[in-house]
Amino acid sequence: MKQEENHGDILIQNGTVLCMDPAQSKFETGAVAVKGKLISAVGGPEISDKWTADRVIDAKGGIIMPGLINTHTHAAMTCFRGLADDLPLMRWLHDHIFPAEAALTPERVYSGSLLACAEMILSGTTCFCDMYLFEDSVAEAAKFAGMRAVVGEVLYDFPSPNYGPVEKGFRYTEEMIRKWRNDSLISVAVEPHSPYLCAPELLQTASHLARKYGVPLVIHLSETESEVAQIKEKYGCRPVEHLANLEVLGQNLLACHCVAVNEHEIALLRESSTKVSHNPESNMKLASGIAPVPRLLAAGVCVGLGTDGCSSNNNLDLFSEMDTAAKLHKVSTLDPTLTDASTVLRMGTLEGAKALGLEKICGSLEVGKGADIIIVGMDKPHLIPMYHPESHLVYAVRGSDVQTSVIDGQVLMENRQLLCMDLERIMEDVREIAKKIRSDGH
Amino acid sequence: MKQEENHGDILIQNGTVLCMDPAQSKFETGAVAVKGKLISAVGGPEISDKWTADRVIDAKGGIIMPGLINTHTHAAMTCFRGLADDLPLMRWLHDHIFPAEAALTPERVYSGSLLACAEMILSGTTCFCDMYLFEDSVAEAAKFAGMRAVVGEVLYDFPSPNYGPVEKGFRYTEEMIRKWRNDSLISVAVEPHSPYLCAPELLQTASHLARKYGVPLVIHLSETESEVAQIKEKYGCRPVEHLANLEVLGQNLLACHCVAVNEHEIALLRESSTKVSHNPESNMKLASGIAPVPRLLAAGVCVGLGTDGCSSNNNLDLFSEMDTAAKLHKVSTLDPTLTDASTVLRMGTLEGAKALGLEKICGSLEVGKGADIIIVGMDKPHLIPMYHPESHLVYAVRGSDVQTSVIDGQVLMENRQLLCMDLERIMEDVREIAKKIRSDGH
Repeated sequence: MKQEENHGDILIQNGTVLCMDPAQSKFETGAVAVKGKLISAVGGPEISDKWTADRVIDAKGGIIMPGLINTHTHAAMTCFRGLADDLPLMRWLHDHIFPAEAALTPERVYSGSLLACAEMILSGTTCFCDMYLFEDSVAEAAKFAGMRAVVGEVLYDFPSPNYGPVEKGFRYTEEMIRKWRNDSLISVAVEPHSPYLCAPELLQTASHLARKYGVPLVIHLSETESEVAQIKEKYGCRPVEHLANLEVLGQNLLACHCVAVNEHEIALLRESSTKVSHNPESNMKLASGIAPVPRLLAAGVCVGLGTDGCSSNNNLDLFSEMDTAAKLHKVSTLDPTLTDASTVLRMGTLEGAKALGLEKICGSLEVGKGADIIIVGMDKPHLIPMYHPESHLVYAVRGSDVQTSVIDGQVLMENRQLLCMDLERIMEDVREIAKKIRSDGH
Repeated sequence: MKQEENHGDILIQNGTVLCMDPAQSKFETGAVAVKGKLISAVGGPEISDKWTADRVIDAKGGIIMPGLINTHTHAAMTCFRGLADDLPLMRWLHDHIFPAEAALTPERVYSGSLLACAEMILSGTTCFCDMYLFEDSVAEAAKFAGMRAVVGEVLYDFPSPNYGPVEKGFRYTEEMIRKWRNDSLISVAVEPHSPYLCAPELLQTASHLARKYGVPLVIHLSETESEVAQIKEKYGCRPVEHLANLEVLGQNLLACHCVAVNEHEIALLRESSTKVSHNPESNMKLASGIAPVPRLLAAGVCVGLGTDGCSSNNNLDLFSEMDTAAKLHKVSTLDPTLTDASTVLRMGTLEGAKALGLEKICGSLEVGKGADIIIVGMDKPHLIPMYHPESHLVYAVRGSDVQTSVIDGQVLMENRQLLCMDLERIMEDVREIAKKIRSDGH
């Protein structure tokens, strides 16, 4: 008879298990057992023999792997998905995005974020890092949806539609840190917007606050050459050097974009153990440039992947983002061996977790880690035949191929059906918000 | 009472109709009526009032548009999907693709092509242009599947696993032309592989044959800088110039890739009305380079889109290809206004039809054209809200969002269910082929 301790809440079996752990463990046929919020066993077919569970999920020959980690997005910008495209950056921002954002409310941010959570769960993302306004509403939405999230209120020099002057922004951030500190899903980061919208004092205060509470510091950094020019003119150095001078670089810093960084800056990022979030589709669509990801990786910098917001992508599908990342760096370097499938898969999983300081919680299937698990269905014409799972996951799978998503031990989506929220209601709410945005003339 | 002539076989209604015709007609709510193989009416809500039909299809608020046109693929290479990735081009070709292709049979090509047709129909592609070995099997597969296709046996200087010496390849091609000349779905092209695998005489013979029968001539052209170097060394000029010297350029020529073309070559392409097939994802994955699409378009060259084969993409999703095309040229030029959504949508539809010489048959919803129509479902979290249909189709929709595909007046897929073939059987056939390929050690 099976022993009590080998009875779990969930047993996911009959699939190829890609652990994405540092040892790159892989089981052609295997299973994962979950007890409560945590993974209690992972391995080959013996797991199915040894374990029973209240709920047994058949992966049907699909791939069982950790959920993907979106290291940079603005979830509530689903409300502005496709509102304005194909425009010069400044016209896009000033004529469309900023005016639409001026009319934001906590309710709109909540609805937009809930829609983003639905999209992410349906496409296999189990954790995201967000920067936006009214961020506590993002946290509430993620919590309601059951998603793991790192959230942070955007801080900048000018008054915010949420909190007004930046001192209040710091207070809002501290309150969020205290409110969510014992939550198993939500953690809070300090998030100054960028070196070009934040004075040195703001950046340093933000950095001190993040270190005081031991939370991540998240910033947009070196997104474009014009940002580099602006910072050089103002401070006499490049953006990463500027943060180094301010002693803001560090292992708790997640620098999003890093498109325009030179070798000296790559060295600074590496020496300080600063993490990078790479957002290829947004960088392409806004014509920001191509981040030197192969050089960052070669230098040993931790690089995760992000979709950025839905107004510059225009979806939150990290499978598509992995595909783009892999291909973009091959063509930009004219070397087809770079950013190979395994490397990009790690960026989408364990490296993403490291980028958020969550490597003990998620990013791989390992005993004791949070049960953030997805099943990718492989029984589809565009995924036949399968020689190498890693290749398919990067070059052929799309978010819509994810069959089942489990986060923190909760089955949130099964056989493409969201179990955790009323999808029709959420879609209707955002359609209504869009009607108002449209009637405002943005 | 409604008149007899306003009764059709199919009426697709209750969707946004994007005609993709030269006038860019668009109906926020509209319908398309089909009689036999042809479109007999297209317009706003009045079409639903005026028309009855044996079969009424509710688009449920989705987008009704012409099917996408894949101007360059090797359908049967689905058999090699993900067989080898992330390798230098020559190792990929010589160690993996060529050995696997040496073991091809008409049966394998048929099965692989049928799987490709399934994938294409499911992702909204209604017409494709193919180049491969045992091409009559591709034609038979497309015909069986109900897809529109331009097919051509690949011709080169060395002996082919299909026909042996090239003279037999020309005979095989002529037989195909005669066999399929009155078919409503299949047409045949003459397809010399490339200037680097085809001697000048072969290219000229191919060109004469194509002109004799009034069929397209399809070739790989200027795919990489190394091809340019090779042709320069051999013939003292660049590839497009080489074809100009041989009088092979012309309005019936479809040149695939055109990655490495300079201003003089762009002028030659334009002056000769040569068409171009742009394959961004394959060019990225193989690190071939970035075709100068914005300059080709500015010069007035007709540019369609292609996925290339499944071993260098690794899927046949043209929606994803449109997204990549739009983004790639923005970032490579650092101009976000280029290759905008409308331009890329035209490349995926009417310009693709022009590239194949099928602009009177397909590529747009116009009365008298073939009824190649797809419905894209919009009622999904990643497509909410919708401000501009064109934006969604390029930047957010994926092939899996296509609900219904009609080709030549036949409903081949409805509500994501293939009606035209036994999908399980086809997938199993290709799985078996892959087993043999794997056991051959490729």
